[in-house]
Amino acid sequence: MVYYLDLFGVGVFAVTGALAAGRKHMDVFGIVVVALVTALGGGTLRDTVLGVRPLFWVADTTYVIVAAAAALVTFSAARFARPHPRLLLFADAFGLAIFTAVGSQKAFAAGAPGLIAVLMGVMTGVAGGMVRDVLCGEIPLILRKEIYATASLAGGVAFVLLRSMAVSQPVSTTAAVLLVVAVRLAAIHWRLSLPAFPARDAESD
Amino acid sequence: MVYYLDLFGVGVFAVTGALAAGRKHMDVFGIVVVALVTALGGGTLRDTVLGVRPLFWVADTTYVIVAAAAALVTFSAARFARPHPRLLLFADAFGLAIFTAVGSQKAFAAGAPGLIAVLMGVMTGVAGGMVRDVLCGEIPLILRKEIYATASLAGGVAFVLLRSMAVSQPVSTTAAVLLVVAVRLAAIHWRLSLPAFPARDAESD
Amino acid sequence: MVYYLDLFGVGVFAVTGALAAGRKHMDVFGIVVVALVTALGGGTLRDTVLGVRPLFWVADTTYVIVAAAAALVTFSAARFARPHPRLLLFADAFGLAIFTAVGSQKAFAAGAPGLIAVLMGVMTGVAGGMVRDVLCGEIPLILRKEIYATASLAGGVAFVLLRSMAVSQPVSTTAAVLLVVAVRLAAIHWRLSLPAFPARDAESD
Repeated sequence: MVYYLDLFGVGVFAVTGALAAGRKHMDVFGIVVVALVTALGGGTLRDTVLGVRPLFWVADTTYVIVAAAAALVTFSAARFARPHPRLLLFADAFGLAIFTAVGSQKAFAAGAPGLIAVLMGVMTGVAGGMVRDVLCGEIPLILRKEIYATASLAGGVAFVLLRSMAVSQPVSTTAAVLLVVAVRLAAIHWRLSLPAFPARDAESD
Repeated sequence: MVYYLDLFGVGVFAVTGALAAGRKHMDVFGIVVVALVTALGGGTLRDTVLGVRPLFWVADTTYVIVAAAAALVTFSAARFARPHPRLLLFADAFGLAIFTAVGSQKAFAAGAPGLIAVLMGVMTGVAGGMVRDVLCGEIPLILRKEIYATASLAGGVAFVLLRSMAVSQPVSTTAAVLLVVAVRLAAIHWRLSLPAFPARDAESD
Repeated sequence: MVYYLDLFGVGVFAVTGALAAGRKHMDVFGIVVVALVTALGGGTLRDTVLGVRPLFWVADTTYVIVAAAAALVTFSAARFARPHPRLLLFADAFGLAIFTAVGSQKAFAAGAPGLIAVLMGVMTGVAGGMVRDVLCGEIPLILRKEIYATASLAGGVAFVLLRSMAVSQPVSTTAAVLLVVAVRLAAIHWRLSLPAFPARDAESD
């Protein structure tokens, strides 16, 4: 079950990568590369940090195939239709939630301390999107957007707290996923955002 | 034999890195850093993904020395002469071909699935150049240029197919190298390029 | 002793990361992310290259806590006061010196060849700052600034030479730290810089 949700997240993130690359007029190969990096980057960093071998997408190439297929479908369909921005935001919130829960769970299962499990959830959720934006020549949106990674942080904390209280893994995972989706959708709906760095005065920047 | 070709590829990629850094007015240290990252970055990612320890340039520091020397020679010679752009394109095509074949071969030898071996060939060939462009503040050219990574992809697929049909490693490597060089030079000569993302309308971007 | 100095370096680098992120109007989460990457990025790359498991900040989460706390304090204090630029330069020189010495020492202890130990020192010292600048949409300053990484290089070489001559580790570490600080402060004071790539003519760029 979590496996199919994870593949869904990979597909969604690949679509966001393909759209971002397309906006920069990359060719079809560049689009597939950016899609793969967006969809698999977070988990790759996580597995590398945790020392998990082989990487999840080397052990199961379905992940690569799903991401590449999502990118190619996005590319092919782009001349006829593009996903509705709002639909994409919802799907992306769901992908973020799944990636966060899977990341925290893998770290927890590998015996990492709670703080690291939280960090691994956030890293799995947001690192792919950060690299996507860097490759597209942008400052990662995630670092300045309305509450995004914060939703991931909340989910990671919830997962680790629940597991530490011996709540079963399926329940903890479900709770974390729902929390991330709820926080993210609330942030989108009410345009919530975190405080930014105070500009001391205009000239100082 | 493959070893010396690999070192040649390292030298060529270091020169492209040094020239790109020089164009951004980096100092001599920045030039060496960008050259090292360009020349060794792809293989470092590959070894990390495959879990190969120690990394190729830690096990054999000749790679580091060749890359640093190529960067310093490029820097020193830059006030007198720079490589002819066409010569550099040819050398770069050759470097890409060798890196692709070596990457696919190492993954194949490590028992990776065919799809992963192809990906490792492409990653070895193009990742260094991508990081070079990011460090220089550019959107990676490889993602939008005339057929470049596609040449690498063709070589990786050819290598894996030939090896799967029990063709010997030297023959498979040679065929992959020649195919990449041929595709790349054809792309340069006839200015071939892949289709890019269709702009739906001018305002949408 | 080295442990507390190392934590000091982590705190200083986190502050530079938080200030750079703040200048780009990132929100508080983005500021913490950039601070963590700046403070822990170099050591993470080093441990990954050397194959050290678990990563230093997974094994001891104090590093994560110090970096996150430094970022939050910087963020909170920013509306009242910011560190004096000169003080920050001094602290940063000290952080660079410690990171270099620790990086070279860990590589040396892991049995890496001398050249790799020097490289690991420089990588530990400068990689975090490079990723910080890339995330902030800038060409890494380190690659073009007055002698910075060169100071790190001098410290790494000194450490490896001293250790190779069987000088004890505390003495070698102290000497390397002092050398990096001295070179860096001299470079700041006299505005020393390395030669850059010669522009052949204005039109060529």
